Amino acid sequence: MTSRKALTEYVSAFTHSLVGLGVLDAVISPGSRSTPLAYACMMQEGLTVYRQIDERSAAYFALGMAKASGRPVMLLCTSGTAAANYFPAIVEAYYARVPLIVVTADRPHELREVGAPQAINQVNLFGTHVKWATDLPMPETDNQLAFLSRHLHRSVQSASSEPKGPVHVNVPFREPLRIDFEQTYESGGEIAHFGGDMSLSPESREFFQRLMKKKKGLLIVGEMTKPMPPEFWDFINKLNWPVLADPLSNLRGNMPSEAKDLIIDSYDALLKNEAFKEEVVPEAVIRVGPQPVSKPLTLFLAAAKPEVYVVFDESPMLRDAQSVATHHIQASANGLWQLPLEMKKKNPYQEKWTVASALYWEVVSRHCQEELDEGILAKIFFDRLDACDLIVGSSMPIRDVDTFFKSTERDVMIYANRGANGIDGVVSTAFGVQAAKQRPAYLFIGDLSFLHDMNGLIASKMQATDLTIVIMNNDGGGIFSYLPQSQEERYFEDLFGTPTGLTFGDVAKMYDTQYVAVETVEQLAEALDQPKDKAVKIIEVFTDRQKNVITHRKLWTRFGEELAKQ
Amino acid sequence: MTSRKALTEYVSAFTHSLVGLGVLDAVISPGSRSTPLAYACMMQEGLTVYRQIDERSAAYFALGMAKASGRPVMLLCTSGTAAANYFPAIVEAYYARVPLIVVTADRPHELREVGAPQAINQVNLFGTHVKWATDLPMPETDNQLAFLSRHLHRSVQSASSEPKGPVHVNVPFREPLRIDFEQTYESGGEIAHFGGDMSLSPESREFFQRLMKKKKGLLIVGEMTKPMPPEFWDFINKLNWPVLADPLSNLRGNMPSEAKDLIIDSYDALLKNEAFKEEVVPEAVIRVGPQPVSKPLTLFLAAAKPEVYVVFDESPMLRDAQSVATHHIQASANGLWQLPLEMKKKNPYQEKWTVASALYWEVVSRHCQEELDEGILAKIFFDRLDACDLIVGSSMPIRDVDTFFKSTERDVMIYANRGANGIDGVVSTAFGVQAAKQRPAYLFIGDLSFLHDMNGLIASKMQATDLTIVIMNNDGGGIFSYLPQSQEERYFEDLFGTPTGLTFGDVAKMYDTQYVAVETVEQLAEALDQPKDKAVKIIEVFTDRQKNVITHRKLWTRFGEELAKQ
Repeated sequence: MTSRKALTEYVSAFTHSLVGLGVLDAVISPGSRSTPLAYACMMQEGLTVYRQIDERSAAYFALGMAKASGRPVMLLCTSGTAAANYFPAIVEAYYARVPLIVVTADRPHELREVGAPQAINQVNLFGTHVKWATDLPMPETDNQLAFLSRHLHRSVQSASSEPKGPVHVNVPFREPLRIDFEQTYESGGEIAHFGGDMSLSPESREFFQRLMKKKKGLLIVGEMTKPMPPEFWDFINKLNWPVLADPLSNLRGNMPSEAKDLIIDSYDALLKNEAFKEEVVPEAVIRVGPQPVSKPLTLFLAAAKPEVYVVFDESPMLRDAQSVATHHIQASANGLWQLPLEMKKKNPYQEKWTVASALYWEVVSRHCQEELDEGILAKIFFDRLDACDLIVGSSMPIRDVDTFFKSTERDVMIYANRGANGIDGVVSTAFGVQAAKQRPAYLFIGDLSFLHDMNGLIASKMQATDLTIVIMNNDGGGIFSYLPQSQEERYFEDLFGTPTGLTFGDVAKMYDTQYVAVETVEQLAEALDQPKDKAVKIIEVFTDRQKNVITHRKLWTRFGEELAKQ
Repeated sequence: MTSRKALTEYVSAFTHSLVGLGVLDAVISPGSRSTPLAYACMMQEGLTVYRQIDERSAAYFALGMAKASGRPVMLLCTSGTAAANYFPAIVEAYYARVPLIVVTADRPHELREVGAPQAINQVNLFGTHVKWATDLPMPETDNQLAFLSRHLHRSVQSASSEPKGPVHVNVPFREPLRIDFEQTYESGGEIAHFGGDMSLSPESREFFQRLMKKKKGLLIVGEMTKPMPPEFWDFINKLNWPVLADPLSNLRGNMPSEAKDLIIDSYDALLKNEAFKEEVVPEAVIRVGPQPVSKPLTLFLAAAKPEVYVVFDESPMLRDAQSVATHHIQASANGLWQLPLEMKKKNPYQEKWTVASALYWEVVSRHCQEELDEGILAKIFFDRLDACDLIVGSSMPIRDVDTFFKSTERDVMIYANRGANGIDGVVSTAFGVQAAKQRPAYLFIGDLSFLHDMNGLIASKMQATDLTIVIMNNDGGGIFSYLPQSQEERYFEDLFGTPTGLTFGDVAKMYDTQYVAVETVEQLAEALDQPKDKAVKIIEVFTDRQKNVITHRKLWTRFGEELAKQ
C-alpha cells in the first residue's frame, strides 16, 4: 500500500519539478483517480490552475494557452475515456508543434486489463501523435523522487525541443488517494539545463549569400506564434523580395510603418489570376514556417516549380506536400535574419507584386461598398481590431482572413489550429489564448465549428475571461460550396451543407453572455462598438451560403478586369 | 489518377459488401475526403444513414445503436482530427464489446506526413483499442474488388466474433472525389460464412453437474444486451440459487411473473449490511457477463473468497479485477441454461436472500413516503416506465437504478456505458439506442454528464427520434460526495463538486424540445405524465447534492435497523 507520506512527496515533487521546468499552467478536469495530483496542483506555488469539465475542450484550452504563451501547459484528467477525449487536441498539437504535458491518472498495474471499472489500456494511448510517452512507477518508496524529477525533465524538454509537441505522462495511483496537506516536501533534485539553437551551417550561410542575389525571389512566411525579431524587418528591407505573409505569420498586424510595401498580404487573391501568375514566376523561394493556408499559392508553386525552393524546417519531417522543395534547411530561421546583406534596389519583379496588391485593396474597398456577404462583414470586423488577439476557425474564417485582413500597424495577433485543420476545439482554443495573453480576444468562427465545441463555453463559468465571439451563421458547412462537391446537387445538403437550423441566442443565455444578432454591416459595427459588460460577448451574424459564393466570385472577376486594364 | 469508374465500383462494392454482411446502419459526419463513400452510403439499398456533425457524439450514437440492435454499425468521417474524435466511443466499445465498423477516409499515401492539410497518421490510429485495423489500398484498378470484399468480410466478422468490438478501416481517396451516379456495379463476390458458438466442453458439463448440487450458491448475471432465452427461466427455477441481477442484466424488466422470487434485485443494498453479509457467505458462485456495477457486491466476494467462483467469459481477458475467480469458462453461457437439471427444493440460504430483499423493498417504500432526495425521485420515474428503453448515466444514475429499480413484469430494457464507465457520450448513446429500437426511450442522467454530451442533441435535428431526458441537476459531480475525497473540505468544490451553475432550459429551447423543470415528486409525476408533443422532452429535476447524501445514508440505517429486528 502506498503510504500517505510517499504519495504526498511524489505528487508534491511532481508539480514542484514542473514549475521549475517552466510549466506554469495546468488545466484540470474533475475525476477521482487524479485526486492526489489535482490536490498538489492546487497547493503548488507558481502554478495557475484552470478547470474544464469536458476533457476534449480542456485539451484544446491547454493547446491555445501553450500556443499563445510559448510555454508547455499541463493537462490532468482521471483514468478511462476521459484520457481518450484529449486525443483530438493532442493530434492537433503534434502537427502544429505545440508543447503539452498530458498527464493521465491511471489505475495501478494490478487493476489493468482485468475488467476493473474505468480502467483502459493507457500505456502509449496516443500512439504516434505524442513525441514521448512514459508510464511512471507507483508512488511507493521514499527514494524515487530523483528518478521522477529526471523523467519530468525529459518530458518537458521533449515537449519544448524543436519540433515542439505533446508528451504523455501516465501516472498510476492506488487507493487511498488522499494526501497530507500539512506535510512539507523537498523536490527530487532538479537537473540544470542549457538548450541550444539549431543555427545555420557555414555551407548554408554561403548558399544563402549567393541565393539572395537573385532578383525574382519570394520570401514566404507561414505560421509564427511569436512576433518576428527586430532584425527580420531590417533583413527584408535590404533583401527587397516580396514577402508573402500567411494570415498566421503574424506579419499582418503590428507592422512597422516603414515595412508597408514589403509585406504582400493579398497573394491568395492575386494568385487566383492566371495572367498575374504567368508574370510572377519566381527564380527562388525561401519559406519559413509551415505551408501557408492559401491553396492558390500552393498550386502556383507546384506549377511554377522554382529552380530553388528552400524550406526551413527544424524537423526531419519536411512540410512539402507538393514535393516542390529543393533545399531543406534543418535549422532555426533566426539565423537567416542575422546574415550580412547589402541593401538591394527595388526591381520590376517586386513592383509587379506591390502594384497588383495595391490595386487589389482598391477593388476590395469598392466591392465592400457595393455588396454584402460574409467576407465583407468579416472585413468590417477585422478593420476594427486593435490591442487584442484574433482566433479564427480553420475552415472559411481563416480564408476570410487571407482575403480580407489588410496588414496594419494595429496590435493584432492571429491564431488558428492549422496542424490538422480541424473544425473541432476552436472555441476552447480561443479561451486558452485569452487566458495566456490576458487581454481582450476575439473568436471568428462558423456555425458548425462553434456548435462542435460549444462546450468550450464551460470554461467561462470556471475562470475569468474576456472573449468576443463572432459567429458567421450560414446554417451549415460554408466551405463545401467552394469545393467540387457543390457541382453535384444530389445529397449536397444531406452530406455537406448539413443545415441544422440552429441559432445561438439561447445558448448565449444559458451561459449568461452578452448577445447580439446581426445581418447588416451597420448592425455588425454597432454590435462590435457596444460596450462589453459580460465576460463573453456573442455576435451572431446571419448570412446566406449561396449568396456568399456568388459575391465572393464577383470579387475575383472585378479584380481580374481591373488588373487587365493596367 | 483514380478513374471515376474504379472509384465508383470501389465504394459501391464497399457498401454492398457491408449490407451483405449485416451492417444495416451507417452514421456519417460531414467532410470532404469521405465524399465517395458518403455518396455510396446514400445510394446503398438496405443501408439506413444517420447523421451527426460532432464525430465524438456520432461514435457514441453508433455505439448505442450497435449495443441495442446487436448488429455492427458503420461510422464514417473525413480525415484528420475528425477521426480522433471517435476515440472515446471506440475505447468504450472495445471494453463493452460492442461491434463497430469505424471507417475513416484518408489522404492518399503521397499526402501523408508531408504537411498536407488535414492529414494525420491514421494507420493504427486507435492502437490497442480496436480488434483489428486495416489500411486499404487506393481505388485504382478494376480487379481489386474481390480483395475488398474479403477484407470487409474480415472486418465485420472480427467485430462480430466474441468478444465483439470495434474495428478500424482506413480508406485513402485521391481527388477528384466525385462518383458516377449512373454507373451500375457488381459486388466483389462475397464469401459465404457459417459462424460457430463456443459451447461447453464435456469436462465443464460434468463440473457444472457437480457444482450445481451445492445449496449455498449464487448465480450472478452482469450486463446482457439481449433478453435471456426461455430456457434460462426454467434453469434458474430448478437451480434454486439466488440470482443476483445487475441493473444491466435486463432481468429486472420483462420478468416472467413466476420468476419473481428468484431474482434478487436489492443485493447492492443488502450487502451494505455487515450482519447480512456474514450470514450469506456462498460456497459457490457462477457469474455470467461482466462484473456487476455494485461495489458492495465486489467487496463482499473479495472478502468471502468463495471456494468455487466460476466466471463465464468468451475472451481470454477474464474480467476479475479482485482475482477471486477460481474457474474461467471460455464459452457461451447459453450452454449452461441447457444443462439437464433436477428440480431442487427451496433452502434456508435462498430464503435469507428473499426475505431480506422483501424487507428492503418495504423499507424503501416507507422511506419514499417520508423523505425526498434524488433516489426517491428516481424511483417515481422508474416505477412508471413501460414498453420503452431506459439509458442511464454511468455515475450516480446507474447506482440509483441498482438501489431503486424494483424488478418488474413491465417491458423495460436498461442500457449504460459500463465498458470504461465514462460520463461522456451518454446522450448520444441514448439517441442511438432509440434509433435501433424505434420505440420510446428514456435517458436518466446527471447534469455534468448531460453537459459533457450536450452535442448529442444535434442528432435530434437530423433524424426522427422519441426520447425523454430526465436530468438530475445537483449542480456538479454528485458521486464525489460518496467517495473518501468528500471527507476533505479543502478544494472539494473546486476539484470534485465543480458546480457550474448551469441549467438547461435555454438549451432545451435552442433544440426546440419540450421542457419542464421540477423539484418535487408531484411535479415529476406530472411532468412524466404530460403528453409528449416534441421529438425530445427534457425534464430537469433540481436536487441538492448534500441532502442526497444524508437521505441516502438514512435509508441504509433504516434498513439495518429493520433487518436487526427480524
